Amino acid sequence: MTVSKLLRERVRYAPYLAKVREAHELIPLFENGQYIGWSGFTGVGAPKVVPHALVEHVEKNGLQGKLRFNLFVGASAGFEECRWAEHDMIERRAPHQVGKPIAKAINAGKINFFDKHLSMFPQDLTYGFYSRNRTDGKVLDYTIIEATAIKEDGSIVPGPSVGGSPEFVSVSDKIIIEINTATPSFEGLHDIDMPVNPPHRQPYPYVKVDDKCGVDSIRVDPERVVAIVESRTMDQVPPNTPSDHTSKAIANHLVEFFRNEVRHGRLPENLHPLQSGIGNIANAVIEGLTDARFKHLTVWTEVLQDSFLDLFENGSLDYATATSVRLTEKGFERLFKNWDQFKNKLCLRSQVVSNSPEIIRRLGVIAMNTPVEVDIYAHANSTNVNGSRMLNGLGGSADFLRNAKLSIMHAPSARPTKVDPTGISSIVPMASHVDQTEHDLDIVVTDQGLADLRGLSPRERAREIINNCAHPDYKDLLTDYLQRSEHYAQKHGCLHEPHMLKNAHKFHTNLIEKGTMKVDAWDPVD
Amino acid sequence: MTVSKLLRERVRYAPYLAKVREAHELIPLFENGQYIGWSGFTGVGAPKVVPHALVEHVEKNGLQGKLRFNLFVGASAGFEECRWAEHDMIERRAPHQVGKPIAKAINAGKINFFDKHLSMFPQDLTYGFYSRNRTDGKVLDYTIIEATAIKEDGSIVPGPSVGGSPEFVSVSDKIIIEINTATPSFEGLHDIDMPVNPPHRQPYPYVKVDDKCGVDSIRVDPERVVAIVESRTMDQVPPNTPSDHTSKAIANHLVEFFRNEVRHGRLPENLHPLQSGIGNIANAVIEGLTDARFKHLTVWTEVLQDSFLDLFENGSLDYATATSVRLTEKGFERLFKNWDQFKNKLCLRSQVVSNSPEIIRRLGVIAMNTPVEVDIYAHANSTNVNGSRMLNGLGGSADFLRNAKLSIMHAPSARPTKVDPTGISSIVPMASHVDQTEHDLDIVVTDQGLADLRGLSPRERAREIINNCAHPDYKDLLTDYLQRSEHYAQKHGCLHEPHMLKNAHKFHTNLIEKGTMKVDAWDPVD
Repeated sequence: MTVSKLLRERVRYAPYLAKVREAHELIPLFENGQYIGWSGFTGVGAPKVVPHALVEHVEKNGLQGKLRFNLFVGASAGFEECRWAEHDMIERRAPHQVGKPIAKAINAGKINFFDKHLSMFPQDLTYGFYSRNRTDGKVLDYTIIEATAIKEDGSIVPGPSVGGSPEFVSVSDKIIIEINTATPSFEGLHDIDMPVNPPHRQPYPYVKVDDKCGVDSIRVDPERVVAIVESRTMDQVPPNTPSDHTSKAIANHLVEFFRNEVRHGRLPENLHPLQSGIGNIANAVIEGLTDARFKHLTVWTEVLQDSFLDLFENGSLDYATATSVRLTEKGFERLFKNWDQFKNKLCLRSQVVSNSPEIIRRLGVIAMNTPVEVDIYAHANSTNVNGSRMLNGLGGSADFLRNAKLSIMHAPSARPTKVDPTGISSIVPMASHVDQTEHDLDIVVTDQGLADLRGLSPRERAREIINNCAHPDYKDLLTDYLQRSEHYAQKHGCLHEPHMLKNAHKFHTNLIEKGTMKVDAWDPVD
Repeated sequence: MTVSKLLRERVRYAPYLAKVREAHELIPLFENGQYIGWSGFTGVGAPKVVPHALVEHVEKNGLQGKLRFNLFVGASAGFEECRWAEHDMIERRAPHQVGKPIAKAINAGKINFFDKHLSMFPQDLTYGFYSRNRTDGKVLDYTIIEATAIKEDGSIVPGPSVGGSPEFVSVSDKIIIEINTATPSFEGLHDIDMPVNPPHRQPYPYVKVDDKCGVDSIRVDPERVVAIVESRTMDQVPPNTPSDHTSKAIANHLVEFFRNEVRHGRLPENLHPLQSGIGNIANAVIEGLTDARFKHLTVWTEVLQDSFLDLFENGSLDYATATSVRLTEKGFERLFKNWDQFKNKLCLRSQVVSNSPEIIRRLGVIAMNTPVEVDIYAHANSTNVNGSRMLNGLGGSADFLRNAKLSIMHAPSARPTKVDPTGISSIVPMASHVDQTEHDLDIVVTDQGLADLRGLSPRERAREIINNCAHPDYKDLLTDYLQRSEHYAQKHGCLHEPHMLKNAHKFHTNLIEKGTMKVDAWDPVD
């Protein structure tokens, strides 16, 4: 078939040009029940044309529920995985997803989803843990990986994310590469550690955010590459939610806290490398740091958003590294317009490295994430609303919060429901699902204020959180729960972390039944 | 004062000999509210004579509640901390404790106890996190450390544990050293990394269990050493609980599992480095490995017990490293009798190294721990009975279970209460306290069988755990909970991890009210 000029420019390994195919030609390769890896992380860098051809094939031939895959992606893959979910093409999925259709399918029990720490997922996959029930010994049948260039040795230059691709490629029976010619090549932006498993692992040598000790492309055995497909589809990242009064208040509390830590010598003036999640609070915090004029900041995180570009441009940020640069169309325009400037200040790594406990702890990272809810003793729920309904998955939250020097969770103190503008309290008696334990969090911050939990016992933590972070509508209710629990625990000799188990989830059952967490009365306990 | 011949032999740094004191002479140094560090880990290597002199002083002068300390020990300190607790001498305590008197004081609300990952606790202390409310900028007023020798440069050779002593000594205003002359010197058994904080940390270079890259004693500024005290008190370790039918059944399931992993190439024939906790199940597992005649095993753990000596002596174990060697009197006799043999096969490290996520993950450790309870979705409670009553603390369980290649929890399927021989099920609908999340555990094993959770969704995990691990008395009840929860979740679109929050802790409330987890009926939900 004809190979476009653009594609020919990007593929510098000639034997691949004989393998160029149209996506629809590859449909026969795919069979029900296969194990498939995709590139992609936080909705950028995922394959597009082959998944699209497959979903069209399913749609056209009414194969919904008959062509289903075990699908593994570094984190969320975005639009195409949602379309697969809509057409019942996903039997099993890990470790993270974003999008209403896929969340809906998971919560309808149609997809066996499991969420695993992003730093561990790729290595557990290479161990064969997820394919242990296969009889043919294979781990992945196919990896479909988006590239922006191919080097002279056939190795793959990824696009805006690295994710789990190095691991997928290393254990995949066959590989399909989509070369995205709609976006410029990202060559030079990556620093990739190809996987090595115990007992042969060596220390990751990184001691500064800008250390580069890996390779600049994903090594692959060219024999296993069965097809090259040109992709002309850009990543689609929705615009970021702008910061508002609540998120700005949170950011202000945090900036004040950082200044105080610097004043007391517990942080240097340029802080420590920052990790920040996705969402309007995360954006507001980055904006807050931009306004606060901190200098020589660095970032060690899993995903970079548009707000980091501002932090670079105002001169606050020296260097940022992640496994994904998830920018809007305008953000990517800014990136490529100033490519020569950014390429020396940015680095994308494998997710096992960006999220590595080893490096997060060594660097003393400051980790900031948004939970569903935090309880009075500082357990946090990152994944399941009311204990059961999956949102997106754990992501890297626990990688960072467990290992950071400062582990911070930020949330609005209250959220609206249909019947009550403050119907949901982010501070609850007992988290309905626990992803981060009381042993992991140092700081909880809401628009109301900041709770510094370091060195406090559970009951001290509870008062700090209720007094500083709870919404005024819930302060008395939470204090009442705590005092009644203490009274009960005094009698029963269990005053370390007092609870009334009968009422521990009453906030949640009240929300389900009445649309608000404002509990009228507690069940009697004695 | 006179210095004994034994003491003179152990102290090879002459200026210290002028600082030799009797313990009672040091009492005036101690004031209410001070921050104190002790050596010690799992009840061995803690200071003895100075704590004893202080408790006698309190007892004699009726100072209970008037001379209270913020006490930090690497893990549990044993007998002397219990006596301090009995005499209300502990205001605050972290991160782990063992003994009825101290647990009782915590559960009576008299001690502000917090439990923190053992790998993190010493570094958080050096960051000043726990002393942030002090106005004088100090972290610790005194560290009281047990040594078995002093080297020519004044540095400290610890005894049977290293724990957090390197960190305590590095941030302590003044240091008191107890030289234990009742036990032989442990010189040569330690490999110690003195603390370095971000941004100056380097990778820990260890890539094999027997690598030694540190120093063989704890470096100290001799100016800060204010007293040397001779101690003639041996460590007292109670005899180990012998294995029984239940623990042997667990061990057999595990050995079979290991053999199967080897057969499928997911583990090498000598497995990977083992971590094992304390208690009769841990002992039975080690006995099981001894009987199974695995060869060239290695151990990377936090504490070594007598059972490991058998594993050495039968030729199964090549090398073991920990931060504490907690042996019975007979065990220590065996150790010292064969010192020349053992000293090349054993190494004691700082707890931040023995429990380091970095190294645990690099080596691919196999972690095995005993929980209070595990729920059907594989969240585990390691610390708080019925969500509130503190047992011992988290210890290193989460350091290992989060980072191991294989994360295993083992427990008897049921335990007796006063009224029901199987009144407590180790498998519950929802853990009443979560220390290990569903994202951390690979394997749950009881006397009934083994559940392999790798790659399973929550509902698949639930069936695997109930079918393989639950006691027969609880199988139907747990299945009923699961099915009713699924029915409810189907209606509400939350079928990822179905729960009935109203009944989630009914096992526990039933236990509290009726002495058994055998629930008669569920509360209605719709």
